[in-house]
Amino acid sequence: MRFKFPLMALALEVAMIILFGLFVQYETDQNIQHFNNSKSVASDRFLELYPLFQDVHVMIFVGFGFLMTFLKKYGFSSVGINLLIASLGLQWGTIAQGILHNSGQKIHIDITNMIKADFSTATVLISFGAVLGKTSPIQMLIMTIIEITVFAGNEYLVDEIFKASDIGASMTIHAFGAYFGLAVAGVLYRSGLRRGHDSEESVYHSDLFAMIGTLFLWMFWPSFNSAIADPGDKQYRAMVNTYFSLAACVLTTYAFSSLFEHRGKLNMVHIQNATLAGGVAVGTCADMVINPYGSMIIGSIAGIISVVGFKFLTPLFATKLRIQDTCGVHNLHGLPGVVGGLAGIVAVAMGASTTSTTDMQAAALGSSIGTAVVGGLITGLILKLPIWGQPPDQHCYDDSVYWEVPRWREHDNQFQEQGNHNQLEPEV
Amino acid sequence: MRFKFPLMALALEVAMIILFGLFVQYETDQNIQHFNNSKSVASDRFLELYPLFQDVHVMIFVGFGFLMTFLKKYGFSSVGINLLIASLGLQWGTIAQGILHNSGQKIHIDITNMIKADFSTATVLISFGAVLGKTSPIQMLIMTIIEITVFAGNEYLVDEIFKASDIGASMTIHAFGAYFGLAVAGVLYRSGLRRGHDSEESVYHSDLFAMIGTLFLWMFWPSFNSAIADPGDKQYRAMVNTYFSLAACVLTTYAFSSLFEHRGKLNMVHIQNATLAGGVAVGTCADMVINPYGSMIIGSIAGIISVVGFKFLTPLFATKLRIQDTCGVHNLHGLPGVVGGLAGIVAVAMGASTTSTTDMQAAALGSSIGTAVVGGLITGLILKLPIWGQPPDQHCYDDSVYWEVPRWREHDNQFQEQGNHNQLEPEV
Amino acid sequence: MRFKFPLMALALEVAMIILFGLFVQYETDQNIQHFNNSKSVASDRFLELYPLFQDVHVMIFVGFGFLMTFLKKYGFSSVGINLLIASLGLQWGTIAQGILHNSGQKIHIDITNMIKADFSTATVLISFGAVLGKTSPIQMLIMTIIEITVFAGNEYLVDEIFKASDIGASMTIHAFGAYFGLAVAGVLYRSGLRRGHDSEESVYHSDLFAMIGTLFLWMFWPSFNSAIADPGDKQYRAMVNTYFSLAACVLTTYAFSSLFEHRGKLNMVHIQNATLAGGVAVGTCADMVINPYGSMIIGSIAGIISVVGFKFLTPLFATKLRIQDTCGVHNLHGLPGVVGGLAGIVAVAMGASTTSTTDMQAAALGSSIGTAVVGGLITGLILKLPIWGQPPDQHCYDDSVYWEVPRWREHDNQFQEQGNHNQLEPEV
Repeated sequence: MRFKFPLMALALEVAMIILFGLFVQYETDQNIQHFNNSKSVASDRFLELYPLFQDVHVMIFVGFGFLMTFLKKYGFSSVGINLLIASLGLQWGTIAQGILHNSGQKIHIDITNMIKADFSTATVLISFGAVLGKTSPIQMLIMTIIEITVFAGNEYLVDEIFKASDIGASMTIHAFGAYFGLAVAGVLYRSGLRRGHDSEESVYHSDLFAMIGTLFLWMFWPSFNSAIADPGDKQYRAMVNTYFSLAACVLTTYAFSSLFEHRGKLNMVHIQNATLAGGVAVGTCADMVINPYGSMIIGSIAGIISVVGFKFLTPLFATKLRIQDTCGVHNLHGLPGVVGGLAGIVAVAMGASTTSTTDMQAAALGSSIGTAVVGGLITGLILKLPIWGQPPDQHCYDDSVYWEVPRWREHDNQFQEQGNHNQLEPEV
Repeated sequence: MRFKFPLMALALEVAMIILFGLFVQYETDQNIQHFNNSKSVASDRFLELYPLFQDVHVMIFVGFGFLMTFLKKYGFSSVGINLLIASLGLQWGTIAQGILHNSGQKIHIDITNMIKADFSTATVLISFGAVLGKTSPIQMLIMTIIEITVFAGNEYLVDEIFKASDIGASMTIHAFGAYFGLAVAGVLYRSGLRRGHDSEESVYHSDLFAMIGTLFLWMFWPSFNSAIADPGDKQYRAMVNTYFSLAACVLTTYAFSSLFEHRGKLNMVHIQNATLAGGVAVGTCADMVINPYGSMIIGSIAGIISVVGFKFLTPLFATKLRIQDTCGVHNLHGLPGVVGGLAGIVAVAMGASTTSTTDMQAAALGSSIGTAVVGGLITGLILKLPIWGQPPDQHCYDDSVYWEVPRWREHDNQFQEQGNHNQLEPEV
Repeated sequence: MRFKFPLMALALEVAMIILFGLFVQYETDQNIQHFNNSKSVASDRFLELYPLFQDVHVMIFVGFGFLMTFLKKYGFSSVGINLLIASLGLQWGTIAQGILHNSGQKIHIDITNMIKADFSTATVLISFGAVLGKTSPIQMLIMTIIEITVFAGNEYLVDEIFKASDIGASMTIHAFGAYFGLAVAGVLYRSGLRRGHDSEESVYHSDLFAMIGTLFLWMFWPSFNSAIADPGDKQYRAMVNTYFSLAACVLTTYAFSSLFEHRGKLNMVHIQNATLAGGVAVGTCADMVINPYGSMIIGSIAGIISVVGFKFLTPLFATKLRIQDTCGVHNLHGLPGVVGGLAGIVAVAMGASTTSTTDMQAAALGSSIGTAVVGGLITGLILKLPIWGQPPDQHCYDDSVYWEVPRWREHDNQFQEQGNHNQLEPEV
């Protein structure tokens, strides 16, 4: 960490400033002379969508950030590295998406660019969840740059070549981010953690912090799925469908959580995560004419599949596939993302959209998963190089490797009483 | 809990999907052919009110949810069962309110339906506060269905028959929810808890979590009171009046909290709750011409009455009336709701509204309290049946009855060191 | 505290109600007859800016409130006294700003008044950060009234006399609030705290609570800098520039935090505070044509300067200048505010604005710092009178002086096990 991390962060920021200097302009540069201080149609739309942008912004920084604070000793990294990834990612996402969609011309910043810049960071934050606690900040900077590049490429393919529908990005963000992260986690497999780790668990209050993240994601998901939808009926439907899909998903999540747990109790992991699967799964067809009851069916199924995933697939992944998925992103984003892609195919087949075909939708799903896995494997190989300050096994899931940490509570002598974690450092 | 809870949750969700399939349509179904992807007046209004809807949404899920996390061992249930109640409630509220107001026709979902669906859940969440810690999730599912049905009936009476004014729902939501909950709590009285309970208290951090709830309720209350107001001056006044009423309420709450406490100290219970009474009490006349100073007088009075209620009435209720009101909803919603109803009568008498009369306002207040008490008593009797998995006295206010709970902190062996609460379960 | 605090709070609220009765009206009083219930241009603009107002509102109450909860035993005061200050401040700010700008006429409340009322409280909340833990609630009520009066005077000077540009208030709010607070802290210097204090530190969870404040400030800062900008291009630019300035600031903050700390670790104090400096520093020229890369340069510099300030200046201030700045407001608001003022001069010199000159900008910066220091010194002298219930040195940074505090955790006997802090009280 000593110099590699600060120098890489500074170099990346300098690069961003240069790229912005070369490629990025205000949307209305040429209008400034003419319409100075007067309102234009563009600025009307800007102000109209700004509340949706801010909802998405809250999801990215508070939602994803706090959702991952469930680990008892990894809250600083969860919320702090989340902020770092997203801040770099939204700059690079502006460039990467802008260049592809503008074929060499200047990128003009409007509210849609800003929303899509935030979107692009979501892919990395999802993947971050898969490798949470087992990677260094430097590794996350590298993953941010690579993953957003691959994401922008796949999104261009889905949008411009396949011309598929994926308004809430079930495929291009959620499935993509999950499978990218799982591929990275697979390459970075640590046999030393195969029996688990003392720090890979929550305490009572860390689970409450995580619920802050869950709720802000849950509440603002209708904004996520509708923010870049066509104005009018499509945007309206995206909000309504997501609202009801999420509500239905909560009921089935609670039911199946209780059904699977010891003596019918509820499991916080399911409540924190599976309640959101309804937002993921309705994403692809959120703006289509699927009717409120249709979205509730999708949400109900997503909640069930997500709880099943947490209960049965995650342990299996860790032991059989040698993929250690810290946050269970496969159950929150991977499976529900695939469900979303499939729901999109069914909806298109049933005539809920007039602008896409089932072939195009299937191609989009395949390309999203395919590019994610390939991109993730390559990224994993790069991150495996033993020069990025990754934490040793025994110090995984522990903030004190990369952060100055205060006492655990008032009268403790140290963060962990019986240990000496305050003196931890990476082995580089 | 073993099967009753999951089966009831699943059955309710299936019922909701069927009801939505039968009765609910997009608002603009018939317009989709004509205006596909073009903006209509309806979708303009949708987007215009969407930020207010999201503010209300945050109040329901984060506001109510975290406000109740003040109990040291009941945070999972507070925020988790709050989410469950609201998710079921908004689906049933859509149906219950829609059918009454549309007399058999299809229900067309617009932004007002969604706001009112969220509103309808608030009644149950208020009542939930009265019985917090002493009921099971199954009981809360049942209460959700019954209470919203009664609420929709009373609201129809107030709106359509009495044609009374109650824009911020001081009477139909706050007073109604409080007296409904108190009636339920009265029927469910537990003499075993008459000397209090070890777990019925806060710890330092749980009080901070509760302040998250308080602040989001406090900040977004102007949106609550104005969300379904008539566009233009009325909506504007509802925002302005609520803003100033709440600010004034904070000053009197702090003053009286300090005045009543030992050595002039401040009491977190008052700060968390009574600061919000100004939003409740200005609700009925929020859109009337009461002037900013008028709303500040209402807010000031509400703060004082609420603190007085917490200090003197709540202990009296528990001992004399045998009503154990866990969160003191009588002081936050009951009394200030009645103050709001009375302020409405005074404001109408002084000519602040041209569309209502004092008689109509008085009838609305009476009907809201009357239906609440009757509905609450009946609900209480149903919930008293010993088949709903209610917790035994000694395990009240304890998440571990219904939740898998992690350790309390890093190096504890269990949630509660000296106990065996991890093994708790309901006596059913 | 026994009677002074409640009586002062009540007297202030009564005074506010009288002042509002005399001076404050609805914006559209004269229109109510004509346009009752119909939408006017004014109410359209009201609804359009209302989401920005709510973002600012969240920054004031959740942002500032939780940012200061980092101290392990001072969370109640941080978030509670923040609410008290802001609630009084927004009422007095409405009057103070309204009277100056309306020269004796009635004050008509529109959305801009409400945003500016919230803004005016920010100055006091910044100063509150400098004296956090060392003052009583009574002292904060007094500071609120004086500081907002001086602020309104300086703002009138900057806006109406100098006609300088300062859309995001780098000078009039951030630099002003910081230097006012530092002057107060200088006068109230406590030599008994020169070697620090056991309670002046965080614990693990209090740092996570503080991150809630950081993130809501960070996310909504584009709304702060654009809320009262001219509609159209200027407002658009204020949002875009602030968005990118903050993102760039995060990268340099992380880099320099790691560079300066022991073994390259990250320091939560920097992450909580310096990441926000980009929002402060871009404030003055946020609506000018500085281009996205220009705002990123400003943000990058602000992050670096802020971390440098925390590392080297704050210790120096405490020892050499005898100014104990609890939250380091000089590094978050003072220095970045001056950087913002200077950036404004440079931007105007480079032609980024056609409505201001460098002389006017320099005068605004000088007047903001000058009035802040003079106002702060006078306020400090008033607050030094030994009649306001200030806490003795040994009980600084401890909620239990002014609050009833619960146990620290489940099985503790008291807030602090080895102490008797529950019995603390001010020495008045």
